[in-house]
Amino acid sequence: MSERPTKAILRVLNGEPVWPLPIWIMRQAGRYLPEYRATRAQAGSFLDLCYNPRLAEEVTLQPIRRFGFDAAILFSDILVIPHALGQEVRFVENEGPKLDPITSLADLKQLKDEIPLEHLDPVFETLDRLSTSLPRETTLLGFCGAPWTVASYMIAGKGTPDQAPARLTAYRDPAFMAALIDRLVKASTAYLIRQIDAGAEAVQIFESFGAALPPALFDTLSLDPIRRIVSGLKAARPQAKAIVFVRGGGSHLARFAAAGVGDALALDWTLDPAQVLPTLPKTVATQGNLDPLALIAGGEALTNGIDRILSAVRGRPHIFNLGHGILPETPTDHVAQLIARVRGA
Amino acid sequence: MSERPTKAILRVLNGEPVWPLPIWIMRQAGRYLPEYRATRAQAGSFLDLCYNPRLAEEVTLQPIRRFGFDAAILFSDILVIPHALGQEVRFVENEGPKLDPITSLADLKQLKDEIPLEHLDPVFETLDRLSTSLPRETTLLGFCGAPWTVASYMIAGKGTPDQAPARLTAYRDPAFMAALIDRLVKASTAYLIRQIDAGAEAVQIFESFGAALPPALFDTLSLDPIRRIVSGLKAARPQAKAIVFVRGGGSHLARFAAAGVGDALALDWTLDPAQVLPTLPKTVATQGNLDPLALIAGGEALTNGIDRILSAVRGRPHIFNLGHGILPETPTDHVAQLIARVRGA
Repeated sequence: MSERPTKAILRVLNGEPVWPLPIWIMRQAGRYLPEYRATRAQAGSFLDLCYNPRLAEEVTLQPIRRFGFDAAILFSDILVIPHALGQEVRFVENEGPKLDPITSLADLKQLKDEIPLEHLDPVFETLDRLSTSLPRETTLLGFCGAPWTVASYMIAGKGTPDQAPARLTAYRDPAFMAALIDRLVKASTAYLIRQIDAGAEAVQIFESFGAALPPALFDTLSLDPIRRIVSGLKAARPQAKAIVFVRGGGSHLARFAAAGVGDALALDWTLDPAQVLPTLPKTVATQGNLDPLALIAGGEALTNGIDRILSAVRGRPHIFNLGHGILPETPTDHVAQLIARVRGA
Repeated sequence: MSERPTKAILRVLNGEPVWPLPIWIMRQAGRYLPEYRATRAQAGSFLDLCYNPRLAEEVTLQPIRRFGFDAAILFSDILVIPHALGQEVRFVENEGPKLDPITSLADLKQLKDEIPLEHLDPVFETLDRLSTSLPRETTLLGFCGAPWTVASYMIAGKGTPDQAPARLTAYRDPAFMAALIDRLVKASTAYLIRQIDAGAEAVQIFESFGAALPPALFDTLSLDPIRRIVSGLKAARPQAKAIVFVRGGGSHLARFAAAGVGDALALDWTLDPAQVLPTLPKTVATQGNLDPLALIAGGEALTNGIDRILSAVRGRPHIFNLGHGILPETPTDHVAQLIARVRGA
């Protein structure tokens, strides 16, 4: 039916082992790059940068120009969804995001029922620009946050250890939590569909806070909402590929695979691919999972870390990546060494 | 040889299923109790309280008097070991512990080679008092921090997200890290042996920060040091029982069991006993693992959470506990409901 993809990352997402492994890095457009810091200084707030198609395109392209990664990921933030739904979102320098907390069904009623996609037109324009400006071998990735991760910010108004405020809300007010998650599932699905229409070839769903949910809540608040988004996206846009990243969700990965959620599962840096891969079907691709601190350290920590992953994933469909976002203090020459070693393997 | 134990917790630690389950709660002597807050106000600093045998005995006994838990755990702190080794340790109200960081072999040389156990005499006196003042059905537990967790405080000088400073040190200066871990293994083993001699019947080793270690470092920095402590303790005091709690270490539990590390493995609240137990030998006891927030929430979240655990562990040697320490805002009547439900099962 459809043409066989030629881009390396899309081939892997189709279940094909590709060697040398294609590679991109979470948060590759970021503060470790001097050219990013220069562009960032031209924008007002962080959200201003996300909503400025020219500058967002520029920072998305910077790591591609410098390193030739196999994928470019849209420069944006997971909190544009609550922002589009009408919640106040601010990014405070060195403190992270601050939101006016939403803690009840009454609060939720103050937000929009459906996401006004026109609010996100600058994001779609960024993707549209990128789909023509990227090298033709580079895969364009869109993304969104998973509902539980986004909800935990919406409820606490900020990042919180173990998402205690949101978890307590899930126990105390399951009706509100279900309504909030449902709102986010629908908004995220519509948002991702529109990202595909604007030029994204695959999307990554970030469950950054998968680790703290107890078994009684995990499926309802994490697995099932992500499953609904992926299946809604694929029902509407069958060609769209999805990568699911559940940080701290190692013990749940086999169930994600069994539920058919995602063309690829991203592994955080604490997982051993040699242990995880035998528990997954061979057709499910994986992604990851170098410790971002090994990339900062360099030397033997870096080469051993890379080689350990390469040897575990050989023969499987795998995309090389870090196990979490690259950190601002990472030396750029270590990134170059990483890419050379993966590509020279 | 030795008499068969009659205390419920010791029977479980011997591999015997006991029903109704015995129960204690991590941090059961703590700020959720008004009587604790009253005693705490009489001590100067938090460390003063730990080193005051009369007051430390009193706060250890308070939850036993109020709730009749099956175990009392020594009131102390995992950072008394670096303190005894000569590192400056302060507890800052509402901020947690602050230490003068130890970041190199040269720094480590400034600390004592061997732990001066006389520095910890007040701790042993507390245990000695408790071994006569506790009800005779109550098991007396000692404890220490696992080397990696303690080292992460010693290196960063405080608690840090994902133990990034200690993890980076492990990559950059493996010789220093190995020397520090070795120092802590020896100090912890000597400390636990002396706790047993002072009246503790079992000990718990707290790896509070097991979650962030990558596979390349986990065995060297967590599993193997804990194994060395447990085997050193048992070689010296064969009757001593050990409970190992690796928070976030779910994917490693089967390897702890296979290595014979610990009479019981404690499960954090994110693990599903129904999934974990089939991966462990039936002779290894388990402990846990109610979400502390379910205990705060009460109502159906609490009863469902309890019942889920009870049904998963029935017929296995299991000690009921939370999956992490009880939080200050926990209503005491929820604790009473928890105990009644576990004992009435």
